[in-house]
Amino acid sequence: MVTKNQIKLVVSLKQKKYRSQHGLFVVEGEKVVKELLHEGVQPYLILVDDPAKVNRFEGSELVDSKVLKQMSSLSQPNGVLGVFYIEKVSDSSKVDWVVVLDAVRDPGNLGTIIRLCDWFGIKQLICSQDTVDCYNPKVLQATMGSIARVQISYLDLVDYLKETEKPVYGAFMDGESVYSEEIPQSGILVMGNEANGVSDEVNQMVTKRISIPQFGETTTESLNVATATAILLNEIRRS
Amino acid sequence: MVTKNQIKLVVSLKQKKYRSQHGLFVVEGEKVVKELLHEGVQPYLILVDDPAKVNRFEGSELVDSKVLKQMSSLSQPNGVLGVFYIEKVSDSSKVDWVVVLDAVRDPGNLGTIIRLCDWFGIKQLICSQDTVDCYNPKVLQATMGSIARVQISYLDLVDYLKETEKPVYGAFMDGESVYSEEIPQSGILVMGNEANGVSDEVNQMVTKRISIPQFGETTTESLNVATATAILLNEIRRS
Repeated sequence: MVTKNQIKLVVSLKQKKYRSQHGLFVVEGEKVVKELLHEGVQPYLILVDDPAKVNRFEGSELVDSKVLKQMSSLSQPNGVLGVFYIEKVSDSSKVDWVVVLDAVRDPGNLGTIIRLCDWFGIKQLICSQDTVDCYNPKVLQATMGSIARVQISYLDLVDYLKETEKPVYGAFMDGESVYSEEIPQSGILVMGNEANGVSDEVNQMVTKRISIPQFGETTTESLNVATATAILLNEIRRS
Repeated sequence: MVTKNQIKLVVSLKQKKYRSQHGLFVVEGEKVVKELLHEGVQPYLILVDDPAKVNRFEGSELVDSKVLKQMSSLSQPNGVLGVFYIEKVSDSSKVDWVVVLDAVRDPGNLGTIIRLCDWFGIKQLICSQDTVDCYNPKVLQATMGSIARVQISYLDLVDYLKETEKPVYGAFMDGESVYSEEIPQSGILVMGNEANGVSDEVNQMVTKRISIPQFGETTTESLNVATATAILLNEIRRS
């Protein structure tokens, strides 16, 4: 039986403050809950609205559809809601490439970047504390199961970059062409904010400024941060 | 003086049916109107809500802010509204690479792909008739001036592909790795629908099936169509 306190807790997790406080986040949908379980993410609570589904999720609890609706962030709840533990950061020295996001604000961009990291086998994503929360329901629905395979941490970027021994690549409009780079086996790729790019403090930690060559007539527009990340991760992996 | 009939016409252009019927589309904002004029797109009507702006746009007409608001697709109209002629398709034999979209439905994806074409110097974009309308206000605001530099046509794709002498590349989950391709100087790149990929009829016109290698653990998810287009256009231009 789900308790009133549990309902209150799940509802509170719509706010980032309570997600951080409790170390928990919510996903909805049979497919994504299954993927997270499959990837070994630890569940705190799994709620289903149909007795047939109880058997499909070990340890799940049956709740009334109306109660599930109350807890859901979706306009059309889909009958399965999972609450999972947020994992702690692991050691960057054990992975090859790490993506670092400096104040990416759009949930759609972050969701796309998480999917890209999963596609290109990037196991660690480090976000500045002012990057949009990856456990934001809009981001989670966009990334689907990718969130289970990419470890995401929110850190002070300057502190993090000070400690690393990896070369730090940053994407800049005026950087050197990525095509002419000898890309190493291991490194860090820093991507900046949608409007302002990489911040001054983080810029100072960048050891190599790179850019994506432009082939059309010159314009002042830059590429969207998610499409630029797609191109640069492809360049890193193809090399 | 703007007439009642002109106001009615501009309002009607919010619907695709009337945009096609009149061969006109609407953009809003000083920057994008200037870019379109700069690129030589022919204006039908330019409306401004401030006498100071009349001098900045040759042939523009002053209207009351309230009237402009009535015509605007934005929740916060920005004082400059341009009505432009939709250009006719030109000859594909004069350009090197052409991007073809088969039933891309999301305005954000189309907007991103138009910006990518502009970045990578792709001058011609051919859309199936069931692709989202590029003169949809949501697409236009996302592409900014790029729409002036990329020529976009809506055609029957099978008829179009039958006529071409260029090699036709298509993006498929099970295609050959794009990394191992000898990419020619000129060709056509076909990208499919968000959920279903390239349709069967168009598939039959594809001469070379390509894919973007995946580096993470195998998943069933594909890349978003806009990020896949980013990676493939980069591959075409870097070669």
